[in-house]
Amino acid sequence: MDNPLTPEVLADPVTLTRVLVDIESVSRNEKELAGYVEEVLRKVPHLSVSRLGNTVMARTDLGRDQRIVLAGHLDTVPINNNFPSELRGDLIYGCGTSDMKSGVAYALHLAVMVPNPRYDVTYFFYEAEEIESRYNGLFLVSEAHPEWLDADFAVLLEPTHGVVEAGCQGTMRSLVSTLGRRAHSARSWHGVNAIHGASEVLRRLNEYQARTVTIDGCAYREGMNAVRISGGVAGNVVPDRCDIEVNFRFAPDRTVAEAETHLREVFAGFDVVITDSAAGALPGLGAEPAREFLAAVGEAPIGKLGWTDVARFAAMGIPALNFGPGDPNLAHHPDEHVEISKVRDGAATLHRWLAA
Amino acid sequence: MDNPLTPEVLADPVTLTRVLVDIESVSRNEKELAGYVEEVLRKVPHLSVSRLGNTVMARTDLGRDQRIVLAGHLDTVPINNNFPSELRGDLIYGCGTSDMKSGVAYALHLAVMVPNPRYDVTYFFYEAEEIESRYNGLFLVSEAHPEWLDADFAVLLEPTHGVVEAGCQGTMRSLVSTLGRRAHSARSWHGVNAIHGASEVLRRLNEYQARTVTIDGCAYREGMNAVRISGGVAGNVVPDRCDIEVNFRFAPDRTVAEAETHLREVFAGFDVVITDSAAGALPGLGAEPAREFLAAVGEAPIGKLGWTDVARFAAMGIPALNFGPGDPNLAHHPDEHVEISKVRDGAATLHRWLAA
Repeated sequence: MDNPLTPEVLADPVTLTRVLVDIESVSRNEKELAGYVEEVLRKVPHLSVSRLGNTVMARTDLGRDQRIVLAGHLDTVPINNNFPSELRGDLIYGCGTSDMKSGVAYALHLAVMVPNPRYDVTYFFYEAEEIESRYNGLFLVSEAHPEWLDADFAVLLEPTHGVVEAGCQGTMRSLVSTLGRRAHSARSWHGVNAIHGASEVLRRLNEYQARTVTIDGCAYREGMNAVRISGGVAGNVVPDRCDIEVNFRFAPDRTVAEAETHLREVFAGFDVVITDSAAGALPGLGAEPAREFLAAVGEAPIGKLGWTDVARFAAMGIPALNFGPGDPNLAHHPDEHVEISKVRDGAATLHRWLAA
Repeated sequence: MDNPLTPEVLADPVTLTRVLVDIESVSRNEKELAGYVEEVLRKVPHLSVSRLGNTVMARTDLGRDQRIVLAGHLDTVPINNNFPSELRGDLIYGCGTSDMKSGVAYALHLAVMVPNPRYDVTYFFYEAEEIESRYNGLFLVSEAHPEWLDADFAVLLEPTHGVVEAGCQGTMRSLVSTLGRRAHSARSWHGVNAIHGASEVLRRLNEYQARTVTIDGCAYREGMNAVRISGGVAGNVVPDRCDIEVNFRFAPDRTVAEAETHLREVFAGFDVVITDSAAGALPGLGAEPAREFLAAVGEAPIGKLGWTDVARFAAMGIPALNFGPGDPNLAHHPDEHVEISKVRDGAATLHRWLAA
């Protein structure tokens, strides 16, 4: 098949969004799309292009004082009766329209159309953001070629519905367990019921007062939630174990270690095992390109409440924020769509900033 | 194979116990054992024998004023490295030694050895007590030939460690559910966490004050226990449902309907579905054969805390109690065993009563 990313398509972020959506690229199946992107970018004289797996990196080397990153993931969650795209009035429907081929369209459009940006730019079109972290293209780059990620500021083109969502919350998963002693339920006083023992764990969760922390004008509201509970041996047995999986979403003023300390304080007296964690990211809006970006957007940023790859940049000391036209609440939804006017507005904002 | 239930074996309840244990009869596999039992009983002149499936019924018809039932189930739970039987000092080890081939040995021994009992006797050797109720031999008899069960008093030869355990508790299983509203766990305040909502259910269970009810001198201690809990959608989702399976063991002064009313009062405000229930059985120690039996035993009865088939008799208005040599705590245990001295003592008691 001919490369559908023609010059006419690349010149218009809306058309480009539709064409990108119509090249299926569910996680682990990004090869075709990555091939088209690489082929197009290698023809652009002001870019030098590298590839790692199905992640394509393109960069300018104009000797600017500052370097920024624009990054979008090529993959989508599995198709759910929402492929190919469909146009309905001002809306493009389809898998990936919001999360995040409209954002990828920005990066690809700008890479081709802005030969003389005000900062040097590194563009990333990366694989496998929607699945386990070990497949994530940015993670693989950070392991194999960390120097590719060097920059003063990064914009992740994740869906934010056209506003700037700065930094991100951290997330920690843990298993809080209660132990008891089995007995026949007809003689239950010979045992200790571990599910009854979980009452106190749930009481603490119920009464937990979550903080809201404001950093650089961005509010991060924390949350601590049981996301799973299980216990039980048989219908006539007093159970000796109950496990509660607790997900703690924490503001980026806490480190992972501080989040763990806090979680262990909340569940003092119980068996707590940390099963998974990811640091948050401070908004980092003081960097010069960040201030100039906010000026171009002209609206106050808000805190990002989910976890995104901005945290990978933050971990390397690179301030990063999220900006994309899609509604994050529609991501992974069968009815996923994006507003054409939002796509145009965001593209104009990025042009205004980068080509100034 | 020749019938191993020879006259010599039948004459000694201890030897008979071992021989019965060594004929494997896990639930649904009672055919061979039922065949031997039927063959032996059909040769006994003072008995008339009937069979339904793998349940064998034998009865005297001597024109006595009173008729009693002696009943034991032929089946065992699955073998667990405890077959065939093994003799260690005063103990016989093996699957079914306690629950309840030692009890079956009593019935078979008495059926053959007591041609002239003081009451008419109906002996039941029945199938499938250890599995779903719909396979239970006594249940099948109660549906097909309820007149076979007519009696003034019944003794179930279930393990009671040589004491009389009268009546039995009722049991009720229910599902208590809490409902909520899903949300992404990074924005948990948009949802309602159903697992957190279960806190109140567990608090009520934790603080539940179980009654102890004394009837005819027998104490029945109640208990209400969560035996299973489950809830959760995914690691990043506030869950919208949590289910708690509650097992209520209730004293036989409550009917099933009263137990349900009580359970619903305890969990007022929550969604409660009754999934299963079985009535208890009052001790019913006032019947003449019961009083004479207690006199032969010479020890005070206690309340039966588990649920047994005595409840089937109680439901038909027939007082019933449990009496067997095995330790009920060893039932279904890989280390199941029975004390030879207990087997002999119990057999002597039954002889004293029946042959008087």
